[in-house]
Amino acid sequence: MPLVVQKYGGTSVADPDRIRRVARRVARTRRARNDVIVVVSAMGSSTDDLISLAHEVSSDPPAREMDMLLTAGERISMALLAMALHSEGVPALSLTGSQAGILTDASHGEAKITEIRGTRVREGLEKGNVVIVAGFQGVDPTSKDVTTLGRGGSDATAVALASAHGADVCEIYTDVMGVYTADPRVVPEARRLETVSFDEMLELAAGGAGVLMARSVEVGRRFNVPIHVRSSFVEDEGTWVKESTMEEAIIRGVAHDTSEAKATIWGVPDRPGVAAALFETLAGARINIDMIVQNVGQDGSTDISFTVPQSQARAARRAAAPLVKELGARDLAVDTDIAKVSLVGAGMKSSPGVAARVFRALADASINIEMISTSPIRISCVVRRGSVDGAVRALHAEFDPPVITEEVGANG
Amino acid sequence: MPLVVQKYGGTSVADPDRIRRVARRVARTRRARNDVIVVVSAMGSSTDDLISLAHEVSSDPPAREMDMLLTAGERISMALLAMALHSEGVPALSLTGSQAGILTDASHGEAKITEIRGTRVREGLEKGNVVIVAGFQGVDPTSKDVTTLGRGGSDATAVALASAHGADVCEIYTDVMGVYTADPRVVPEARRLETVSFDEMLELAAGGAGVLMARSVEVGRRFNVPIHVRSSFVEDEGTWVKESTMEEAIIRGVAHDTSEAKATIWGVPDRPGVAAALFETLAGARINIDMIVQNVGQDGSTDISFTVPQSQARAARRAAAPLVKELGARDLAVDTDIAKVSLVGAGMKSSPGVAARVFRALADASINIEMISTSPIRISCVVRRGSVDGAVRALHAEFDPPVITEEVGANG
Repeated sequence: MPLVVQKYGGTSVADPDRIRRVARRVARTRRARNDVIVVVSAMGSSTDDLISLAHEVSSDPPAREMDMLLTAGERISMALLAMALHSEGVPALSLTGSQAGILTDASHGEAKITEIRGTRVREGLEKGNVVIVAGFQGVDPTSKDVTTLGRGGSDATAVALASAHGADVCEIYTDVMGVYTADPRVVPEARRLETVSFDEMLELAAGGAGVLMARSVEVGRRFNVPIHVRSSFVEDEGTWVKESTMEEAIIRGVAHDTSEAKATIWGVPDRPGVAAALFETLAGARINIDMIVQNVGQDGSTDISFTVPQSQARAARRAAAPLVKELGARDLAVDTDIAKVSLVGAGMKSSPGVAARVFRALADASINIEMISTSPIRISCVVRRGSVDGAVRALHAEFDPPVITEEVGANG
Repeated sequence: MPLVVQKYGGTSVADPDRIRRVARRVARTRRARNDVIVVVSAMGSSTDDLISLAHEVSSDPPAREMDMLLTAGERISMALLAMALHSEGVPALSLTGSQAGILTDASHGEAKITEIRGTRVREGLEKGNVVIVAGFQGVDPTSKDVTTLGRGGSDATAVALASAHGADVCEIYTDVMGVYTADPRVVPEARRLETVSFDEMLELAAGGAGVLMARSVEVGRRFNVPIHVRSSFVEDEGTWVKESTMEEAIIRGVAHDTSEAKATIWGVPDRPGVAAALFETLAGARINIDMIVQNVGQDGSTDISFTVPQSQARAARRAAAPLVKELGARDLAVDTDIAKVSLVGAGMKSSPGVAARVFRALADASINIEMISTSPIRISCVVRRGSVDGAVRALHAEFDPPVITEEVGANG
């Protein structure tokens, strides 16, 4: 029997009505003779509500207890979904992350899945149940403490379960119709992509496309689990994320991200080991670095810029400040009024001139570029926050229709 | 170091303010050089809220999933209390029932504690933590499913933990000042008892004194764990429940209960095995029977009356109806408009005439008695629901002051 993993986010299970709707959808999948594993997030804003409660009792809640608290959220939604499925006449069994064998490291709040032990899920399926698994959570087998996986954790749970149990597809249900050529709120003429490769999806996610987090795409790519991103409100097909096909687009889409801040260290002495010292320090403080740009100046010193999540901007400054002094750098500035716009497409690596067209399109729209970073299939520019919508529209228009396909060889 | 177990009910942890107040109280106990285990219920009405959610998605939620759902409640309150204690500078560790080694049978919704495995609690205490344990929940070691203990489950958790870990006292914090000679809402002149024996407390609890459930008193009596029932809002001493002392009261107090219904089977043929068949059937349907009264009539038939929780009245009727026919009984009637009033005191067993005074006091207040049941230390009467407050006041006045003490011998 085919095995389908379905993941429903918080919006899809926000209230009893929606939970019943999800149950009907799961029931249809089950009746179509599939084994089904369902991964659920906490209901609507309930995780935020729990976080608020925590901050009402403590200004600095310990991470272990925060995880204990937050894992109550999925416990509620998964039990309710199991009940709703029983009401539909479909046997169902809910399992916590720990019960479903989701083992993680000990990093409370941002744990990584290290192993999946599938016994209880397998037994549940063999007895004819739909097995419902709490997303976003696992257990550290050493301390036996529960952990949470951090942002995008439920998607990661779903794709990891799909991989461990050899699922035929991992369906990610969300409140949008799939992956778009740009954010439709910014570019009304943006179109839904039918397929996108793992590599492209990784770049789109890194560029700010919030529909799917990079970590779940990485798991999907590593174990070749096709991911189907689709709406929980309509039956239409969404976007398939899978291995690249014969037909490869030059440009897939435009992503943007307003959640980052830019830090610049001015006048760093230009000698070996300086960058290493800086980024080792930041890694030690668990700061997530996205873009890094360094240019060597002519006076024997250099400027290093990097972007970090805005939520970590203060921590980054705290971590880097002593080092700035130590290295004899001139100054450290953190700028939160920035945004990043990225053009993504696996075909651009064989299409010269794409970068030039990007810079020209932005220049024509009078948008100044503050940082540039590229990969073989992506070009990212940091611009002023206020310019980002214009930048997205300019790039989408320049490469319109953004999905430009060409026939490539069997190595494509 | 002395070990104190403290249990805080839902009212005591109903909101962040109250959780912080509980944390300060626990912190004081800890700083007074005690090891402390804290048992918490779910916040305020949160369990009821979860039950409502369940009924919104299913008319008949499976018991296993109901337990999965409800156990989220204590998970939230215990994590928040741990955070609040950290804020007070007191290291704390929250553990679910399962993590705290509370093993139960498989009866979802009304599980019984079968064993306590104390390793994680002990390790937590040895590392200097206040250990916070979720009340009301455990785990069935066979299925590895979480279970809930039903009514009074958090008190039972606390007393069982106190027994398993050899605590010096189990403090039950509640929204009243202790155990009273009668419900102060009915009898304004009712007074708080300083001590009450396990046996008397069992009878008071069975009689409807809601402050402490019989099941936790039973555990306390079996393992001789002194229980201190006290207010979570003031520092005053409450009521100590412990082994009977040299000084024994004739009458401890008046309890009443409006949560029961009375079932009567009329005209049951008077032959051996009839009562056995009836109550075996009811036990098989998991109906909790309280009082049973049978009188043999003169026409070779008998009437059997018994009381059950109102919530089980329909189930009792369903279970008993076929048997009524089978036995050739005349009729089955269920009456929910009743109440029970009980006079309790260990001294009454050696004081003749107490029963007569009870019946006279009720008669003088024009209250009709519909059922009578006695134990060596209790007299209970079923009366019309509308008469119960009058009955409580009449008995409290008759035996006023209700705590009549006399010196008894060393065997007292």
